[in-house]
Amino acid sequence: MGFHAIRILGIDPGLRRTGWGVIASEGTRVGFVACGHVRSSDGASLASRLCELHRGLEGVIASWQPDEVAVEETFVNKDAQSTLKLGHARGVALLVPGLAGLAVAEYAANLVKKTVVGVGHADKRQVEAMVRVLLPKASPDSADAADALAVAITHAQHRQAARRLGLA
Amino acid sequence: MGFHAIRILGIDPGLRRTGWGVIASEGTRVGFVACGHVRSSDGASLASRLCELHRGLEGVIASWQPDEVAVEETFVNKDAQSTLKLGHARGVALLVPGLAGLAVAEYAANLVKKTVVGVGHADKRQVEAMVRVLLPKASPDSADAADALAVAITHAQHRQAARRLGLA
Repeated sequence: MGFHAIRILGIDPGLRRTGWGVIASEGTRVGFVACGHVRSSDGASLASRLCELHRGLEGVIASWQPDEVAVEETFVNKDAQSTLKLGHARGVALLVPGLAGLAVAEYAANLVKKTVVGVGHADKRQVEAMVRVLLPKASPDSADAADALAVAITHAQHRQAARRLGLA
Repeated sequence: MGFHAIRILGIDPGLRRTGWGVIASEGTRVGFVACGHVRSSDGASLASRLCELHRGLEGVIASWQPDEVAVEETFVNKDAQSTLKLGHARGVALLVPGLAGLAVAEYAANLVKKTVVGVGHADKRQVEAMVRVLLPKASPDSADAADALAVAITHAQHRQAARRLGLA
């Protein structure tokens, strides 16, 4: 990718594991840069688990210097307790790039699936398979990392559409 | 309060408004130090609202130098979207003292009510009235600030009980 490529960090938040993926985007082309996930310790207090996620994401931003960030609007239907937990992790995932002065976009899980696979109700494996097609150099170590790359791809496509329409 | 008083910061998290209250605690006595709330801007992006809460709570900790922190385990029954929003704010409320190296305790809303009013199903006004009785010098500017003082009082009582039992 050339001089005008921008780096996009995608984040798939979760309390136990938060996936992240960095891509380069130029025009309609996307390229793999890096991906992985940040873990928090199961037995630790909630406050220190959130600190672990915070430090991990700070490290990712420091290492990969993204220009823009996209976070998945994950949605849990299980129960209020799980939703609250996810909210804690998502709060940190939105806060860390915000504090670094980066623009943070949010994309609904359905839009991510629709953008990457073509249908809003694709399952995790279909998303992962399409991420490998779109980013052949990527070898995501987890479903969370693949999801994070999918969010980054979604942002690359939608920020382009917005630019063509003169919205950004 | 004397030399051995500790300062407890109580936090009642919310995305629009996060209440905070600082008390001094020595033995079985509690005294008012300060209280207020941190707001986030309605129209702003979620990331920048969380940054506002983060900066506000950082400021509270820097100004009032608490020794320990207690956060209310608020529980929302409304809908998943509200629960997720609250989770975001709570994530920041737990993270900021955690990053400052402070111990963060969590107390269920029912335990806070039971400790302060005597019954687990007290309403907001009863909690506020009892906070004024227990901390006559406090004049909380909002229900959130009163709730935050109630959480701090709860921690003062329960950490004492834990100490008498030799648990801490």
